[in-house]
Amino acid sequence: MVTQARIPETGKARVVIVGGGFGGLELAKVLCPAEVQVVLIDKHNFHTFQPLLYQVSTAGLEADSIIYPFRKIFEEQKNFYFRLAEVQGVDTTNQEVETSIGLMRYDYLVIATGATTNFYGNEQIEANAIAIKSIEDAVTLRNTVLSNFEKALQLDDEEQINSLMDFVIVGGGPTGVEIAGALSELRRHVFPCDYKELDFKQMDIHLIQSGPGLLKGMSDEAGKKAQEYLETFGVNVMLNRRVVSYDGYTVTLNTGEKLITRTLIWAAGVAGAPVAGIRPESILKGGRLLVDRYNKVAGYENIFAIGDVAAMVTESDPHGHPMMAQPAIQQGKLLGKNILRMLDGKSLEAYVYSDKGSMATIGRNHAVADLRLLHKDYKTQGFFAWLIWMFIHLMSLVGFQNRLFVLLHWVRSYFSYDKGIRFILGQKKENIPVEATVDHKSIT
Amino acid sequence: MVTQARIPETGKARVVIVGGGFGGLELAKVLCPAEVQVVLIDKHNFHTFQPLLYQVSTAGLEADSIIYPFRKIFEEQKNFYFRLAEVQGVDTTNQEVETSIGLMRYDYLVIATGATTNFYGNEQIEANAIAIKSIEDAVTLRNTVLSNFEKALQLDDEEQINSLMDFVIVGGGPTGVEIAGALSELRRHVFPCDYKELDFKQMDIHLIQSGPGLLKGMSDEAGKKAQEYLETFGVNVMLNRRVVSYDGYTVTLNTGEKLITRTLIWAAGVAGAPVAGIRPESILKGGRLLVDRYNKVAGYENIFAIGDVAAMVTESDPHGHPMMAQPAIQQGKLLGKNILRMLDGKSLEAYVYSDKGSMATIGRNHAVADLRLLHKDYKTQGFFAWLIWMFIHLMSLVGFQNRLFVLLHWVRSYFSYDKGIRFILGQKKENIPVEATVDHKSIT
Repeated sequence: MVTQARIPETGKARVVIVGGGFGGLELAKVLCPAEVQVVLIDKHNFHTFQPLLYQVSTAGLEADSIIYPFRKIFEEQKNFYFRLAEVQGVDTTNQEVETSIGLMRYDYLVIATGATTNFYGNEQIEANAIAIKSIEDAVTLRNTVLSNFEKALQLDDEEQINSLMDFVIVGGGPTGVEIAGALSELRRHVFPCDYKELDFKQMDIHLIQSGPGLLKGMSDEAGKKAQEYLETFGVNVMLNRRVVSYDGYTVTLNTGEKLITRTLIWAAGVAGAPVAGIRPESILKGGRLLVDRYNKVAGYENIFAIGDVAAMVTESDPHGHPMMAQPAIQQGKLLGKNILRMLDGKSLEAYVYSDKGSMATIGRNHAVADLRLLHKDYKTQGFFAWLIWMFIHLMSLVGFQNRLFVLLHWVRSYFSYDKGIRFILGQKKENIPVEATVDHKSIT
Repeated sequence: MVTQARIPETGKARVVIVGGGFGGLELAKVLCPAEVQVVLIDKHNFHTFQPLLYQVSTAGLEADSIIYPFRKIFEEQKNFYFRLAEVQGVDTTNQEVETSIGLMRYDYLVIATGATTNFYGNEQIEANAIAIKSIEDAVTLRNTVLSNFEKALQLDDEEQINSLMDFVIVGGGPTGVEIAGALSELRRHVFPCDYKELDFKQMDIHLIQSGPGLLKGMSDEAGKKAQEYLETFGVNVMLNRRVVSYDGYTVTLNTGEKLITRTLIWAAGVAGAPVAGIRPESILKGGRLLVDRYNKVAGYENIFAIGDVAAMVTESDPHGHPMMAQPAIQQGKLLGKNILRMLDGKSLEAYVYSDKGSMATIGRNHAVADLRLLHKDYKTQGFFAWLIWMFIHLMSLVGFQNRLFVLLHWVRSYFSYDKGIRFILGQKKENIPVEATVDHKSIT
């Protein structure tokens, strides 16, 4: 027997939004005054501010500071309904979403499922690496890093110790760069105080990038400067290399080079997370859904996709817009307005990407920023970029309390050179128990 | 092959402390100037401020605010070594502790393992109830409560809905009273905003106490007033009753009464957590170790026990001191001084319990306090007691940052009537899936 999800019928058109990331959140807010019923489905009961996940993963912020409960955000919005559920598919003929809590009828369906980590089909890497896409991932990385050092204290075999103390980050985009920078800060200022018995000269941080430079989507200046900063901080930046295998201990690169680490952080690619049941013709390579200028999924009249999962292929963006917060927010906002227009029988407004630029932070006082203000480009690197980075991220957080707490954490860390959240609490990743491999030597 | 835990030999006498609760922490601090090596073993890498666990379990505080990393606390203490490990036993003949990371030699062993939840041998209750002894327990309760309401939205069977919305708390000590009070606050101010589709008149909170009054260790006034406050807040206080069985759905009391709930919170008793290998003659009923006035475990010359796990049986305290923070802190401090004295060949000071009183909070503006200052007793209930309760708990937290963040959370909650930490993140308890029991009616 198939159950029906219980959602009150309000007699109004029902907009079902799958996913409460940047796009879904914005859309639900814009629909506040609309004569519709808004149903948001998410597998978490909170929104996650993804740009700061890397700080949670490196003990800089507590998980709770960058997440915010949906029910709290929409407390005052009368037409809003939240359901904690996983979406299993969509039956486009009967206009129903299949979820873990039953079938859910929709009039308009908006797919805002974002992106998942792309392992490019390498199941071995997928099984052994840590990705940073969810708050659980970030907490797992933090716990794993800290556990590694606790374990390293118990070993005297040099290679074994290095396998625990060395980190390999794959992917030279913002996430990879930011994690590498944060780990190098921990190595300089925090870990040596905590683990006086370990020699942190032995801790290596490798950043592997397939292309010839870091931060591909940004300017050459930004990429070069980011690399320079990272190298000053002692990160080993390895360009033009790809990981071909990782067994939980040995990383093999396409050049034949080998690295030893128990912790491979995979920030090398994302893929759209489409929903089963959408016709295959509308799903592009990379799992994104082909949408028109109104974010309508090709082949459907009442199914939309916004944000990372949507590929709006235009002449200027033949691969769709970058998979970042900005297009998601802008599309969420516009789609909300367009749904209001549809209900009023008005004509729709086409989406035009307004690129405000992008940035990445490398460590205290160091960031790179390519900004676009009033149709002019500004490129800046260093302390000023770092201040801008902090200001924008702080202001973008949902909720006054989160902003205040993040600010307090940052101010404290800045002056004390310390990171407070060094707890091993929750899940961690352990591919091969240390005990099992004390005699395992893999570099021959 | 049995491994040895790797701890540097410093040529000094080694004091191994098992457990970093209030007592262990205090002891390790006092030993800072001593010519000894201090080794602290704990299964967490952080100290937990147990008196505020109930606030984590009821979404009032984030877990990170009441825990603090040991390595940070002892950053400056040169003779201090921390090991993240579980203790499996002690070999008193060879003077070695058996741990998850190998054998560890000791000159002095201090057992400060605290207490575990006492289910009085009822395995069915142990399997199905939630206890509140660790930070993981507290997070589990929070996640379970919030998940319950998410699930209740999907049901239309009245009994099923009640099984999710009703809570039974067993044990009328401070923990039981505080959880009942906090849940009643959430019912009044928070949940109805979050779950507008549910009728919170249906949410029942039952507090079951085996004795004739609440807060047994405190004054009659305190117990009576606590009950009065709880009843005003709509908690159903059931005295002179014991739970005889709980299958994850139906609670059966010794009176034959039955209650339906999927969430039984067990705060009905604690037992000492002794270490295997200690001679049975020294282990009293309730798992506590018999110690003399110097906290030396009966039958040993170099093994000590402090805090909840120690029973110092005296004429005035025939069952040992109360299992609370104060005796633990005082004994930890004194034992540290006594170890210093032993090393100097001086005579030892006997422990005398200095009872400073106890208190419990019931909800905003309401607490009860029995205080003892300068050998005089002061009893107070209501707003003033609540202020004292907040001040003392705030000041007792480890770390300026935790104090500041807890204060900010409290100030915010107080003025907004809101609790911020409504995240379902991490493990939760689900005895019987809702789907499996839609037709299950257990009250006949």
